[in-house]
Amino acid sequence: MHKKFLQQAIILASENASTLKGGPYAAIIVKNGELIAASSNCVTLHTDPTAHAEIMAIRLACKKLNDFQLSNCILYCSCEPCPMCLGAIYWARLERVYFACNRLDAADSGFDDSFIYDEISLPPEKRQIPMIQLKLKDAVKPFITWDALKNKTLY
Amino acid sequence: MHKKFLQQAIILASENASTLKGGPYAAIIVKNGELIAASSNCVTLHTDPTAHAEIMAIRLACKKLNDFQLSNCILYCSCEPCPMCLGAIYWARLERVYFACNRLDAADSGFDDSFIYDEISLPPEKRQIPMIQLKLKDAVKPFITWDALKNKTLY
Repeated sequence: MHKKFLQQAIILASENASTLKGGPYAAIIVKNGELIAASSNCVTLHTDPTAHAEIMAIRLACKKLNDFQLSNCILYCSCEPCPMCLGAIYWARLERVYFACNRLDAADSGFDDSFIYDEISLPPEKRQIPMIQLKLKDAVKPFITWDALKNKTLY
Repeated sequence: MHKKFLQQAIILASENASTLKGGPYAAIIVKNGELIAASSNCVTLHTDPTAHAEIMAIRLACKKLNDFQLSNCILYCSCEPCPMCLGAIYWARLERVYFACNRLDAADSGFDDSFIYDEISLPPEKRQIPMIQLKLKDAVKPFITWDALKNKTLY
């Protein structure tokens, strides 16, 4: 069954590329054996660098289930998720992920997944896109406000 | 000037929490000294686990500039970006990032940023959300299709 859904993701990814709609990626989300969301990469179509197949599929599935968590759902990706999508997988609390190609296959076609994985382990200020912490007196005020709230929706 | 924009992000993040709209985070994108996009965290508001402030601000800025890349833009975040947002920053090719709090401040308020950073360095199959590569015969077909395309939009 896992191979069947993964195969579907590969076919969708190839179609997306060959019809010039976007990058060669697709993702499918399944709950209790039922397909609940599928998407291919929509970065250029939507002019949105975050519109990777996995992110799109997570958004679609959350909309369908009216829930910001996807516990008990399985994600099938034509390629190993990039760090952005990996983060989204944790925030969505998916149960498991199956993928076909890996980050090195992506790199062979000019996609930076592998490079971003390398950058993450560097100290923020040493990265190729420098990330600099500026110390401000009330920096933690948002968290203090959050911690004191009684009626907040945890996520 | 950097402190001024970062301060604005902190105020927006506090307001978002105190008005119960969502998590205690905000992000601002600036190009040539001009604010072009601002957003707070919208995860619970939009029922979308990917609707972090940084992702929302990147989407808004791309829409405004009609470009899927944000070269020459600076991102100001009330907190160090999580791995999902870090990935999005690379895909959007932002120039630089300034942040106020860090991942440990976020962890103190119950947010998993730090945990996700730890998970990334593990082999995919050893993670708390297992990520398993299934070998399929035509796994790389989407990339072969992509490589052969002549009129594709690179991103």
